[in-house]
Amino acid sequence: YPVNPNADEILGLKAYPSVSSIPEPVDVVVVSVPAPKVPKVIEDAGKAGAKFAVIIASGFKEVGNVELEKRVVETARRYGMRVLGPNIFGYVYTPSRINATFGPRDVIPGGVAFITQSGALGIALMGTTIMEGIGVSAIISIGNKADLDDADFLEFFEKDPNTNIVLIYLEGISDGRRFVEVASKVTLQKPIVVIKSGRTEAGARAAASHTGSLAGNIAFYETAFKQSGILFAKSVEEAFDWVKALTWNPLPKGDRIVVITNGGGAGVQASDTLADNGFLLQRPSETLVEEIKKFVPPFASLANPIDITGMAPTEWYYRSVYAALKDPGVDSVVVLYCHTALTHPVEVAEEIIRAVKDVGGLTKPLTVALIGGVEAYEGIKKLTETRIPAYPTPERAAAAMAAIHRYVKYREYVRKRLSYLGKERS
Amino acid sequence: YPVNPNADEILGLKAYPSVSSIPEPVDVVVVSVPAPKVPKVIEDAGKAGAKFAVIIASGFKEVGNVELEKRVVETARRYGMRVLGPNIFGYVYTPSRINATFGPRDVIPGGVAFITQSGALGIALMGTTIMEGIGVSAIISIGNKADLDDADFLEFFEKDPNTNIVLIYLEGISDGRRFVEVASKVTLQKPIVVIKSGRTEAGARAAASHTGSLAGNIAFYETAFKQSGILFAKSVEEAFDWVKALTWNPLPKGDRIVVITNGGGAGVQASDTLADNGFLLQRPSETLVEEIKKFVPPFASLANPIDITGMAPTEWYYRSVYAALKDPGVDSVVVLYCHTALTHPVEVAEEIIRAVKDVGGLTKPLTVALIGGVEAYEGIKKLTETRIPAYPTPERAAAAMAAIHRYVKYREYVRKRLSYLGKERS
Repeated sequence: YPVNPNADEILGLKAYPSVSSIPEPVDVVVVSVPAPKVPKVIEDAGKAGAKFAVIIASGFKEVGNVELEKRVVETARRYGMRVLGPNIFGYVYTPSRINATFGPRDVIPGGVAFITQSGALGIALMGTTIMEGIGVSAIISIGNKADLDDADFLEFFEKDPNTNIVLIYLEGISDGRRFVEVASKVTLQKPIVVIKSGRTEAGARAAASHTGSLAGNIAFYETAFKQSGILFAKSVEEAFDWVKALTWNPLPKGDRIVVITNGGGAGVQASDTLADNGFLLQRPSETLVEEIKKFVPPFASLANPIDITGMAPTEWYYRSVYAALKDPGVDSVVVLYCHTALTHPVEVAEEIIRAVKDVGGLTKPLTVALIGGVEAYEGIKKLTETRIPAYPTPERAAAAMAAIHRYVKYREYVRKRLSYLGKERS
Repeated sequence: YPVNPNADEILGLKAYPSVSSIPEPVDVVVVSVPAPKVPKVIEDAGKAGAKFAVIIASGFKEVGNVELEKRVVETARRYGMRVLGPNIFGYVYTPSRINATFGPRDVIPGGVAFITQSGALGIALMGTTIMEGIGVSAIISIGNKADLDDADFLEFFEKDPNTNIVLIYLEGISDGRRFVEVASKVTLQKPIVVIKSGRTEAGARAAASHTGSLAGNIAFYETAFKQSGILFAKSVEEAFDWVKALTWNPLPKGDRIVVITNGGGAGVQASDTLADNGFLLQRPSETLVEEIKKFVPPFASLANPIDITGMAPTEWYYRSVYAALKDPGVDSVVVLYCHTALTHPVEVAEEIIRAVKDVGGLTKPLTVALIGGVEAYEGIKKLTETRIPAYPTPERAAAAMAAIHRYVKYREYVRKRLSYLGKERS
């Protein structure tokens, strides 16, 4: 229902002069009026029985109007109403087909809930989810957090069957203890990836002049994230890479990662990245080696990375990926393809997709890198369309796989820590 | 001249049975015959007076045929011939319009010389240069380095007027001392970016099984790189990001970096990345602040990052970039744009290009991030087509700018070290 005291019709819909004049019960009110008028609208919405106010308007705490913001929250509380915002670009919840933002309208439904404290960057990243083919359950522009904050939404997403991973762009937290407690519970169920802006002193100063939120000591955040099992991304690219791998993949049963490549150099880069993240490649299982020996040339290296050589036709990708996904001695698979003159990346992508289909879907985690020019990007698009996480460099594919394995390790740590705390209390 | 003893014509060109039967003097011989036949071809080419043999053929040291490789080099030496390879995909030198590789044929001429020890990855990255619009002077697949190695090519590129930066994908060096000496001289003139594969122990093991080269202790490489002023990239993406920024930009006169953004969050991420690299944003010059104050709203933050706010129309990008590039108190500029509903990234790109044109070209370094969906990528393409380095995330634009500044610092260090060594000797 559009509400506007000066219009009878908006976009072909009948407009109402106030929320309370709407003939039906109202659940959510999206408020986009100048800041000084917000308290009156909230009052009216409260009377109309609305339960949830989404305040897009800015001009509150972020410009020094602390009192006005307080008044809005107090008014809402009087009517038992919760407030998202103010100073936000809105929110999305795809299961209810709601997109109350001024960002892109064509977000893809999926399992990722994205909470962002930054407006412009948040809207831009909404666009990135679409381009990267990442489906979202929710996008929450959280703004000044006058009432609801990250922990509140985490509690919701923990139970939300439509969400399987939470991504947070965070500038500051006011109640650190509660955040850690809630996040620790959530990460037992679902991964959380956080981009903490203002990691450095310089960044923290920039953040302070941005939303006025204190970025705080990064050591505190690092400890808090570790204790709650949160994956800490330093860049938006890293965060999106990891999210793609985590939302589309199942979790691995162990740390036996196998890297398959047609280029030794790409394999070395992936090994370096995995080692940077604490994961060492072990010798692949004998059965897998035997299987791959059947078709590769004698000079192929069958250690890990498994180098099926630069002469590999697309079919070898099918066979090696199929064999690795089938093999019970393999927990997860990183596939690398360097574009050479022999094969087309799209065909390699198709063979990988066929292998995944033939083993019955992604029964263990898989990430892919197709390295090259525009043709490689076509292949990446093909893979991501079928929800196989694919990247343009070996390091990004390896880092995304490392994130999955790190999450499993973190979760184990949190589980132990919580059980220890539980024992201590009893 | 095609040479093949079994053909009279190849691709419409008259074929010769041997190099020595070619009626004109021969400069370079590209050898692509089975390994055992290579010595005979080299002998013949030597007799014909060829000066340079490019041996694409594999089947030498990398598979244990050390003797055969030695014989090839000895034969070449007898005739005063130098050898590139064996076990390579060829070489490119755009000023002479030579592309003797089996990689992509449409490389873009430009200032980047790329030396790669990896075959498949190297060919794939040839494709990446094309997609990223990076112009190359040369691409050298260096393979087993039986004769010519990285240092030899560095010496050439130091003096080559067609090269302004060298990118090396390196697995191992045999003569570390010489490499450091040569590289130290080169980095006084031109930046060198190195991707050192096998940075970690696991990676080194993978590298050993790849080309048989010993990756060596990474601490040695780190020291060697630092002493010679080399920029050390951990991933191919990083390397290409830096190369783009270094090849298209002039060098800055000092460390006064200004960040301009329409999104606070993007500004914070860039500040964090610059701080990670040792560069702190200082308060921008008064003249720049005064200039920007003229058009931005009063709540815009004019500290550094300069936040021209989410309501910035494209024109503000023109005005702020123009002002920053003109201002003598600014040494380099990072421009960030978060795609919002108000403006189109391509138009933002056009305004930035216009500003650069109106100040008389890139008189100081500039990097740009356009963050968002597919539209942002169109804008990035537009910028890179006019040789303004542009990226999809704030961190990558900031890291590329940091690489430029780091190079200047490194060069200063090398200069001092060399002058110190010089004094010590005299």
